[in-house]
Amino acid sequence: MSISKKLSRLACAIGATTVLSASLISADAMAVEKIRWQVPLAFPSHLVGLTTPIKHLSESLKAISGGDIQLRYYEPGELVPPFEIMDAVSNGKYPAGYTWIGYDQGTIASLPLYSGAPFNMEPPAYLAWYYEGDGKKLLEEIYAERNIHPMLCSIIGPEGAGWFAKPVEKLEDFDGLRIRFAGIGGKVLEKLGASVTMIPGGEIYQALERKTIDATEFSQPAIDKMLGLDQIIKNYIMPGWHQTLTTSHLLVNKGVWDKLEPQSRALIEMGCESATLKGFAESEWAQPTALREYEKQGVKAQVLPEEVLRELERVTNEVLDEIAAKDEMFNRVLTSQRDFMKHHSIWHGKGYLPRDYYQYE
Amino acid sequence: MSISKKLSRLACAIGATTVLSASLISADAMAVEKIRWQVPLAFPSHLVGLTTPIKHLSESLKAISGGDIQLRYYEPGELVPPFEIMDAVSNGKYPAGYTWIGYDQGTIASLPLYSGAPFNMEPPAYLAWYYEGDGKKLLEEIYAERNIHPMLCSIIGPEGAGWFAKPVEKLEDFDGLRIRFAGIGGKVLEKLGASVTMIPGGEIYQALERKTIDATEFSQPAIDKMLGLDQIIKNYIMPGWHQTLTTSHLLVNKGVWDKLEPQSRALIEMGCESATLKGFAESEWAQPTALREYEKQGVKAQVLPEEVLRELERVTNEVLDEIAAKDEMFNRVLTSQRDFMKHHSIWHGKGYLPRDYYQYE
Repeated sequence: MSISKKLSRLACAIGATTVLSASLISADAMAVEKIRWQVPLAFPSHLVGLTTPIKHLSESLKAISGGDIQLRYYEPGELVPPFEIMDAVSNGKYPAGYTWIGYDQGTIASLPLYSGAPFNMEPPAYLAWYYEGDGKKLLEEIYAERNIHPMLCSIIGPEGAGWFAKPVEKLEDFDGLRIRFAGIGGKVLEKLGASVTMIPGGEIYQALERKTIDATEFSQPAIDKMLGLDQIIKNYIMPGWHQTLTTSHLLVNKGVWDKLEPQSRALIEMGCESATLKGFAESEWAQPTALREYEKQGVKAQVLPEEVLRELERVTNEVLDEIAAKDEMFNRVLTSQRDFMKHHSIWHGKGYLPRDYYQYE
Repeated sequence: MSISKKLSRLACAIGATTVLSASLISADAMAVEKIRWQVPLAFPSHLVGLTTPIKHLSESLKAISGGDIQLRYYEPGELVPPFEIMDAVSNGKYPAGYTWIGYDQGTIASLPLYSGAPFNMEPPAYLAWYYEGDGKKLLEEIYAERNIHPMLCSIIGPEGAGWFAKPVEKLEDFDGLRIRFAGIGGKVLEKLGASVTMIPGGEIYQALERKTIDATEFSQPAIDKMLGLDQIIKNYIMPGWHQTLTTSHLLVNKGVWDKLEPQSRALIEMGCESATLKGFAESEWAQPTALREYEKQGVKAQVLPEEVLRELERVTNEVLDEIAAKDEMFNRVLTSQRDFMKHHSIWHGKGYLPRDYYQYE
């Protein structure tokens, strides 16, 4: 081999080594794996605070990773019906789904304690219980046997207590009422004599208009606004005793999750935490605007009398105890939540100003 | 040139090109710039929810970037005294600082409206005003002329109203009181006849023990616990009317910030949002534990009577109006906050359950 040839090879080798090591440093610096997930949604992507976090997550992960991590979400039913998201993620048909996990309470009884339950915590205490207490650990345990890794990825405050053809002044007003009401709150109203049905959000307007139901709850004021219920019903009742918070979760197939680079996992987790904070801010921003618009349209925003709330809480605890007696995991989650609420009550009750301090002047 | 030599060069060129393009894809995929910031702190890094977010931020950025982004924080005074952090970031002595921006209210009158002010919003509404309303925009405007880019990077709930040698039952009890009290709340107490001093946290215990002051506020229950005040004072008063929230901010030199890759900026912003959520959760977790421990040690957790709170709010508004008359930016921020609180009050007052619903049973 000539000297020039040797030199040429050496230079080439040095060049390649340099480039290679730069590449290795870079690969070490940030997981360069490509993530392309199709993510089915349970609710439309425009519900403020409830589903808008999936937009934030998708956009920010794409921007930060320079396009390497792309979570493309699909509106309800485009890929799979809302009630089938859990199974589709579990069996790997889709790598991830973004859903209201209360939809799966028929299969996993304890999920409503995570998706929003009567007289449960409000968002600040819930975040404490979820991240610092048992919440996250127990939810991961619940989903592990279904091959799913769950992540909290949105939290908003209370719902409204619903839309009623007539005002609610006493507990007896629920007796005989034909009402659309979801989850554990529905069981409470059944105990009080209501006839509870669960019809999809898209059919509520028609059912009220045709008077096949007398009342309904759906979500928060700003989300209910999209259904246009204020056009036919003038009694809007608060607060949403039956759901003191609502969450959404990103469910990821556990096999897919475990195979990700640790850096990708950390980035997606951080993305959900950030999206949760921003979604909560959006939600608190939007609710008063919706309520003010209701006022302008002649909707009466009624607050349930405290004695009615106390009775609703009493019956709620009966219902919760009944479910806990039948389902071990429900009992574990409920006990953990009740213990923390009892503990947290001293701060919740004494540490914050009275609710009406805004209006002292 | 021999054929073998040509082939060898070709192979080498192909190899180098392949490696190079892999490297370019990787560089495109994630900003590989190295960030090494020394970050001085205004408070010790172990204050739950208040400063612990800087730990979360530092650790998660390092993990996600594979060590490329390192924010190394330094305890108060190690690099620069707490009151000099803003200047040190402004003039580029340090690229960033993590601070309680109320410390700079002598220079920028409007900052206490961001760091925690009397009868201001609680965290959920504040997050709405900050991200969705004028908050973030105005704060960026405030700091722009000082060459600083500010980022909200922690939020916690109300402080306690303080530690008092004697219980506070009526407004007159503040008259003649020698009290350590920070910020705008201190001006309110001065109007009520108190003699207000501002001594550093580390000297409070001694001042109370030597009876050179009769009372003090410092922070939230779990943070006050670290000062050991419960050993010498038995009257702990809530709620913290004078600071309905407390924030920390990451201040970044604007020249440094603007030169960062867009991906790095997006990652740091996301990191602060995530750290804020986790810090808030930690804080809500820790407060009731501190209060329960106080109870065991014979500390009486007193709640201020509503008529005292109403009077404190009346005087607060006088003080706020006086500052607003003298400082244009204070007036702009205050007006924006008051407008939003007025708007938000319908939701804050009616949308949530009464504070004591935890204890109905």
